[in-house]
Amino acid sequence: MTLTLEEHAAMQAQIMAAIPHARAIGIEVLGVEGRTCVARVPFRDDLVGDPESRIIAGGVVTTLLDHIGGSAVAVALREFRSIATLDLRIDYMRPAAPGTGVTAEAECTKITRSVAFIRAVAYDQTKDDPVATAVGVYMLGAEP
Amino acid sequence: MTLTLEEHAAMQAQIMAAIPHARAIGIEVLGVEGRTCVARVPFRDDLVGDPESRIIAGGVVTTLLDHIGGSAVAVALREFRSIATLDLRIDYMRPAAPGTGVTAEAECTKITRSVAFIRAVAYDQTKDDPVATAVGVYMLGAEP
Amino acid sequence: MTLTLEEHAAMQAQIMAAIPHARAIGIEVLGVEGRTCVARVPFRDDLVGDPESRIIAGGVVTTLLDHIGGSAVAVALREFRSIATLDLRIDYMRPAAPGTGVTAEAECTKITRSVAFIRAVAYDQTKDDPVATAVGVYMLGAEP
Amino acid sequence: MTLTLEEHAAMQAQIMAAIPHARAIGIEVLGVEGRTCVARVPFRDDLVGDPESRIIAGGVVTTLLDHIGGSAVAVALREFRSIATLDLRIDYMRPAAPGTGVTAEAECTKITRSVAFIRAVAYDQTKDDPVATAVGVYMLGAEP
Repeated sequence: MTLTLEEHAAMQAQIMAAIPHARAIGIEVLGVEGRTCVARVPFRDDLVGDPESRIIAGGVVTTLLDHIGGSAVAVALREFRSIATLDLRIDYMRPAAPGTGVTAEAECTKITRSVAFIRAVAYDQTKDDPVATAVGVYMLGAEP
Repeated sequence: MTLTLEEHAAMQAQIMAAIPHARAIGIEVLGVEGRTCVARVPFRDDLVGDPESRIIAGGVVTTLLDHIGGSAVAVALREFRSIATLDLRIDYMRPAAPGTGVTAEAECTKITRSVAFIRAVAYDQTKDDPVATAVGVYMLGAEP
Repeated sequence: MTLTLEEHAAMQAQIMAAIPHARAIGIEVLGVEGRTCVARVPFRDDLVGDPESRIIAGGVVTTLLDHIGGSAVAVALREFRSIATLDLRIDYMRPAAPGTGVTAEAECTKITRSVAFIRAVAYDQTKDDPVATAVGVYMLGAEP
Repeated sequence: MTLTLEEHAAMQAQIMAAIPHARAIGIEVLGVEGRTCVARVPFRDDLVGDPESRIIAGGVVTTLLDHIGGSAVAVALREFRSIATLDLRIDYMRPAAPGTGVTAEAECTKITRSVAFIRAVAYDQTKDDPVATAVGVYMLGAEP
């Protein structure tokens, strides 16, 4: 069964909303545009990395980037196959502004029979001034 | 001021215990042995990545690896300088066993004037059968 | 001394032409456009990775990506400081076509006081269908 | 057909000796011990990265690490399947000493049905003081 892009995006948002750790961090899927997925973690005091600075923790940014990367693969696949992160590299350009949440966009850049590559960016204000970027490879489960 | 290894390890554990996001996830510093730091995230239902499998989320493993990597740098430095993750690569070997927490060990493999390299491993049972491994580079702040 | 972009690009091409290993592989700097550098390795039989397939070796692609990444940093700096690769990640999307050379483009995405981040892509036909992509961090020497 | 470790190691050395780019750089396979492969690039003037320093180029070190990583996978597999680098991360700890060659050791740390993980280290004098380290993932072709 191949779904429409809209059906897939809607399901993807539901799947992510059902992941306990994504829910615990407060990840919100904002949308899907073509092969790009966008999600957001609103600021919360318990997501902070350093109590004095009130800057969101690096681990939260990484978790968001990994989730949105997997979502971009899921949307690009447009069929149900298991997706597991094989490896992920994150580059931390600068800390987020204090007291602000982080938005992330991911794009699936290449799919082969068994793996998919993604590229993602996390930012507090605009995509052109990233907090962090990521590249990763996801392993795809057996074709249905 | 240069601290003894024990003083440093104790302070490091205190610093980590004060990081809101590390506390929210439940990271416990287990100890320092030479240049190696060990920490643990006990299993909790809200840390799960997939509600059916009860397997701890990849993001939690990554956050633990990043924290313990930074701790290994802090211990290796033995003086107070700011430490920021510059980049991190995580390889996910296999999912953790359902319903189990994850332990991670990190070692600072090289320190230069301005950066430090780490290597880390996360596992559920033994270090020889890792859930994930990480390598990363941390930027060091100005010398005191 | 701050050079014009053109002066810098010209010098950069000269510097690269003077690197024995870059010369041995046959790297040609094609040009600089804004913050983007482009270089090329023409096909040669001794650069092949597999004698039957006549596909250019992965190591040649990596060497090209690392060189062009360093060049993008040099151009973005616009002053003379030493530049050393700190770490580099390469994702290999697909083999190059048999008997063809490889072109690479790199962009310096962020410069801080002591490090610079790059993103690069290598392709045989068009940038939209890459052979490999790279992200990396370069360490900058003391300011002059 | 499953080969003995010795047969495999011998074939592996032959295969690598047949790779034009490996031969052009002068890679010599030194041996296989358990799951670890060792190879070497002797110093040569045309492998230098900077004509003044006579330090071997980063690209040569990377090429050696990638080759030896693939060899470690081949030896660990002990059957003939195609092996392609999926991604590779290299951390450059320090330049090699001027006028010296580089030795590299790689170990296959995990094999799944379709991918293999490696860890490798390159050094001029001893393994404990590396010039560079690498981690990577290799894609395995269909089982024979």
